[in-house]
Amino acid sequence: MRKLTAARLREILGAGEILGDPHRLITGVAPPEDAEEGDLTFIFSKRWLQSLSQTRASVVVLPYREGLVWSSSATYILVEKIEESMLKLLSLFLPSAVTLGEGVSSMAFVSPLAVLEEGVRVYPFAFIDEGAYVERDAVIMSHVFIGKDSRVGKGVLLYPGVVVYPGVVVGENSIVHSGAVLGADGFGYVEFQGQRVKIPQVGGVSIGKKVEIGANTCVDRATMGMTVVGDGTKLDNLIQIGHNVKVGRHCAFAAQVGISGSVSIGDRVLMGGQAGVADHGSIGSNAMIGAKSGIAGRVPEGSIVIGSPALPHRLFKRVQGALTKLPDMVKRMRALEKALEGMRDGRD
Amino acid sequence: MRKLTAARLREILGAGEILGDPHRLITGVAPPEDAEEGDLTFIFSKRWLQSLSQTRASVVVLPYREGLVWSSSATYILVEKIEESMLKLLSLFLPSAVTLGEGVSSMAFVSPLAVLEEGVRVYPFAFIDEGAYVERDAVIMSHVFIGKDSRVGKGVLLYPGVVVYPGVVVGENSIVHSGAVLGADGFGYVEFQGQRVKIPQVGGVSIGKKVEIGANTCVDRATMGMTVVGDGTKLDNLIQIGHNVKVGRHCAFAAQVGISGSVSIGDRVLMGGQAGVADHGSIGSNAMIGAKSGIAGRVPEGSIVIGSPALPHRLFKRVQGALTKLPDMVKRMRALEKALEGMRDGRD
Amino acid sequence: MRKLTAARLREILGAGEILGDPHRLITGVAPPEDAEEGDLTFIFSKRWLQSLSQTRASVVVLPYREGLVWSSSATYILVEKIEESMLKLLSLFLPSAVTLGEGVSSMAFVSPLAVLEEGVRVYPFAFIDEGAYVERDAVIMSHVFIGKDSRVGKGVLLYPGVVVYPGVVVGENSIVHSGAVLGADGFGYVEFQGQRVKIPQVGGVSIGKKVEIGANTCVDRATMGMTVVGDGTKLDNLIQIGHNVKVGRHCAFAAQVGISGSVSIGDRVLMGGQAGVADHGSIGSNAMIGAKSGIAGRVPEGSIVIGSPALPHRLFKRVQGALTKLPDMVKRMRALEKALEGMRDGRD
Repeated sequence: MRKLTAARLREILGAGEILGDPHRLITGVAPPEDAEEGDLTFIFSKRWLQSLSQTRASVVVLPYREGLVWSSSATYILVEKIEESMLKLLSLFLPSAVTLGEGVSSMAFVSPLAVLEEGVRVYPFAFIDEGAYVERDAVIMSHVFIGKDSRVGKGVLLYPGVVVYPGVVVGENSIVHSGAVLGADGFGYVEFQGQRVKIPQVGGVSIGKKVEIGANTCVDRATMGMTVVGDGTKLDNLIQIGHNVKVGRHCAFAAQVGISGSVSIGDRVLMGGQAGVADHGSIGSNAMIGAKSGIAGRVPEGSIVIGSPALPHRLFKRVQGALTKLPDMVKRMRALEKALEGMRDGRD
Repeated sequence: MRKLTAARLREILGAGEILGDPHRLITGVAPPEDAEEGDLTFIFSKRWLQSLSQTRASVVVLPYREGLVWSSSATYILVEKIEESMLKLLSLFLPSAVTLGEGVSSMAFVSPLAVLEEGVRVYPFAFIDEGAYVERDAVIMSHVFIGKDSRVGKGVLLYPGVVVYPGVVVGENSIVHSGAVLGADGFGYVEFQGQRVKIPQVGGVSIGKKVEIGANTCVDRATMGMTVVGDGTKLDNLIQIGHNVKVGRHCAFAAQVGISGSVSIGDRVLMGGQAGVADHGSIGSNAMIGAKSGIAGRVPEGSIVIGSPALPHRLFKRVQGALTKLPDMVKRMRALEKALEGMRDGRD
Repeated sequence: MRKLTAARLREILGAGEILGDPHRLITGVAPPEDAEEGDLTFIFSKRWLQSLSQTRASVVVLPYREGLVWSSSATYILVEKIEESMLKLLSLFLPSAVTLGEGVSSMAFVSPLAVLEEGVRVYPFAFIDEGAYVERDAVIMSHVFIGKDSRVGKGVLLYPGVVVYPGVVVGENSIVHSGAVLGADGFGYVEFQGQRVKIPQVGGVSIGKKVEIGANTCVDRATMGMTVVGDGTKLDNLIQIGHNVKVGRHCAFAAQVGISGSVSIGDRVLMGGQAGVADHGSIGSNAMIGAKSGIAGRVPEGSIVIGSPALPHRLFKRVQGALTKLPDMVKRMRALEKALEGMRDGRD
C-alpha cells in the first residue's frame, strides 16, 4: 500500500497550494461521496461541489475557481489545472493488470514461424500463429489469439481473450480489451442462384496508434482493402464496426454504437451510446451524433444531430417538445373543424 | 436417461392430484407444442391452454384454475402452485455444465500466490493470477481469466471464457456466463493539450450475491471507488454497465441494455431490451423502463416510462397513437387555414 | 504471393472479353479507390463507376452493361455475371485462417468420452467435453469450448474463443465467429416468495446447416425444447437470440439485432441493424424489418416495417416527413384558434 502525505502530493504535482495540515497521510483514492479517512479525492466539476462538505476524504484536490467549503477534517490542495493534476495523481494508484515478466510462457503456443521482438510478454494459453509479428514490449495476455500474418505494434496491450484474425494490423501503443474481435468476416452475401452466397472477405483491418478498443467490440475485416480505425480513436465496449468502414483519428464512440459496412467517418467525431449508421453513410469531421441516433446518408462536418432518423439537435428538441402536445392537438383540430363548420352553417 | 412415472412426479412435488394413469412413464421434458410421447410438459399460463388439446406429451402438469381439456393420451397432474412445481420438476432434467470433479486441472495455470479454498474446481486452460482468492466450491471453467487480487465468492460459477480483471469482487452463489467481462477500463478521457488522454481507471467492480450475468455482458471498473451490481440482480446478455454505475438489488435488465457512466439505479428496477441510460442519470426503485427507451436525467421511484426520449407510458401510447394521424393533420391544417382565409375574404 | 495474368483470370472465369493487354500481371485485390499497380479490382455497381477513371488497378473486372471509361493503365475483363465472377476471383485471394493440419493438438483437451470423426482439426487450448461429438472435417480453433453431449456437424468451422454449451447442435458447414456463445441460459425467472428465482433452462440450441454466426453473437438455450436457427440463416455480430426463439431459413440479421424470448420468425426475413423484437412476437416469411425498429406482436408475411413502434414503411416515411413540421404546426394551430375567436367576437 502506498502512503503519501499532502506535501508529497503537492511535490509530485509540481504546483498548487496546500490549505490545512501538509502531513495528512493518504493511502488510497476514491470519489468524494465514497471516500473514507485516508483517501485522496478530487473535485473537478461544479457537479461535485456539493459533495465537498460531506466527503470524509483526508486530502481533496480542487481547482482555484471552485467555491471552497472548509471542512476541518480535510487538507486541500488548490491547483490551476485540475485535469492534469488528476491524471498525475491517479496514475500513482493504478493497479497493473500485467503481472508477468518479460518472455514467453512455456504454457503459451507460439509458432516457430512467428516473430517476437525483445521485451514482448506472452501469457499462458496465448496462441500466436505462423507469420505473426509482435513488436517490442507488447503484452499478449492469456487466451489471446493472433492469426497468421497479423502484426501487433510496439507496446500494444492485448487483454485476455482478444482475438486478432489473420491479416490484421494493430498500431503501436494501442490497448485492446478482453473479448474484442478484430478481423472477423464482414457481413457480405450475394443472392446467387436463389441462395445467399458468402462473398469471400479477403481484406484486412488496420488499427492505428494509441487506439483503445473496448471489451467485446468487433471490427470486421474488409471485403477487399482495409477496414480502418484511425490514430488516437477510442471505441467503448460492445461496438460494431462493419467491413470497409473508415473511422478517422481521435474519434470517441460510446458503448453499443453500430457502424454498418462502407461507412466513412472523419476525425474527432463523437458518437453517443447505441447510435447507428446505415451502410455507405458518411460523417464529417468534428460532428457530434447523439445517443441512440440513427444515421443514413451524410452528416456535414461539425454538425450536431440526434434522433432516428437524425435531425439537427435544435430541431430535434423542438420536435420532441411539440410531440407531447400532439394528442391534445388532434382534439383541438377536431374542435376547430367543428367550429368552422358551425360558422359556415350559420352563414348559409 | 431418467425414467419417472407420473406417480413419482406427484411424490416429488409433495402435492397435486393425478388424473389418468399414474404409471405413465416420462423420460424428458418439452414445451407443449414440441412435446413427444414420453415427455413431461407444463401449462402454466392461459396463453398455452390451446396447446393442451394438441400436445403429444405423456404427462401434463397444470394448475387447477385453468380449463381442462381431456386428452386420452395424457396423464394430468393438477397442482396449486404451478411455478413452484415447474421449478422442482425442471431441476430433475437440468444438464449440468460442470463435468469436472473437485480440484485443479494440471492443464490450468494457478499462481502460487493465489488462494483457492477447498472444493474449488478449476478447468484446463483457466488462468488465476497472483493475489486472487477463490472461495470454496466455486467452479472456474476453461479459458477463464481471474486477475490480480480479485475475489470469487463461495459457490460462484464462472462459465468458459469469463474475464475477471484485477480488483474485482464476485459475491457468493453468483453465475457469470461465457464471454462476460468484469472490470475492463471505464471509458474516461480528458481533452488535454489537444489530445484525448486516458484517465487511469483505478477503481474496481463489486458484484453482489446471487447475481446472474449474461453472456458477453460488460461491467466496467470504476474510475475511483467501485462499480456496483447489487444482490440478486439479473443481467441478460450483451449488456453494458459503465464505470461508477450503481445498480441496486433484485433488478432485471433484458439483453443489450446500455448504462452509461455514473448512473445510479435503485432496487427492483426492470429494464426492457436495448434500453439506454445517459451518464449521471438516476432511476428510482421499482421503476419499469420499456424496451428501447432512452433515459436522460431522473426517473422517479415506481414510475413506468418508455420511448426515446422516455415519456410516462400512458402519454407515450397516446403520442404514438396520434403520430400516425400526423400526415393527415398537416393536410387538414392547410385546409383549415384556407377555409379561414376564404371566410375572411368573404367578409371583407 | 500469387501472380496471375489477365488472360489467366479470364480462363478461370470461363467467360468474358479482355480489352487491353492480356499479359498484365496482378498480385492482389483491392476496391477501386484503394487499388494500386498490380491489383485486381471490380466495378459491380453504378455506385462505383466514377471510381473507374481514377483507379490505379492493373486489371478491372466489370459487367458489359456498365458505361466504360477507357483508362490506358488498366486491362478490362468484361463479364456477363459480375457477382459470380467476383465470387470466383476473390476466392483466389482468400487467406485461410486455418493453418493447422489434420489431427488434435497435444496442447488441446479432448475428453476420452468425446468422439471425433476423421479429418477433424483441433487447435491448442481447445476444450472438448465428454459426450461431445465432432463430425468429420470440422475445425475447432484455439480457446473453443464444446460442452457435454453437444454435436458439431461436418465441415463446421469454429473460430477462436467460440463457446458451445452442453446440449447444442451445430449443423454441417456452418461457420461460427470468435466470441459467439451458443447455449447460455435463457433469461427466465419467476417471482417466488418475494425473490426472483431462476427457471432451470433444460432445453438446448439447434443451429441449422450453412448457418453463419457473427462475432460475439449469443443464442440462448431453450427453457424446454430447442432454440432454433434455420438452415442458411446469417447472423451478424453482437446479436441476441433469446430462449425458445425459432428463426427460419435463409434469414439475414444485421449487427446488434435483439430477439426476445419465444419469438417466432419465418424464412428469408431480413432485419436491419439494432432492430429488436419483443417476447412472443412473430414475423412472417419474407418480411423486411428496418434498422433500429422495435417490433411487438405480429408482422405479416412479406411486409416492410420500420420504426419503434414499427409502422409500414410508407406510413413511417410520411410520419417522419410531417414530424419536422410539428413545431410549426403548434404555432399555426394557436394562430387558427385566435383567428377563429376573433371572427366569433366580431360576429357577436
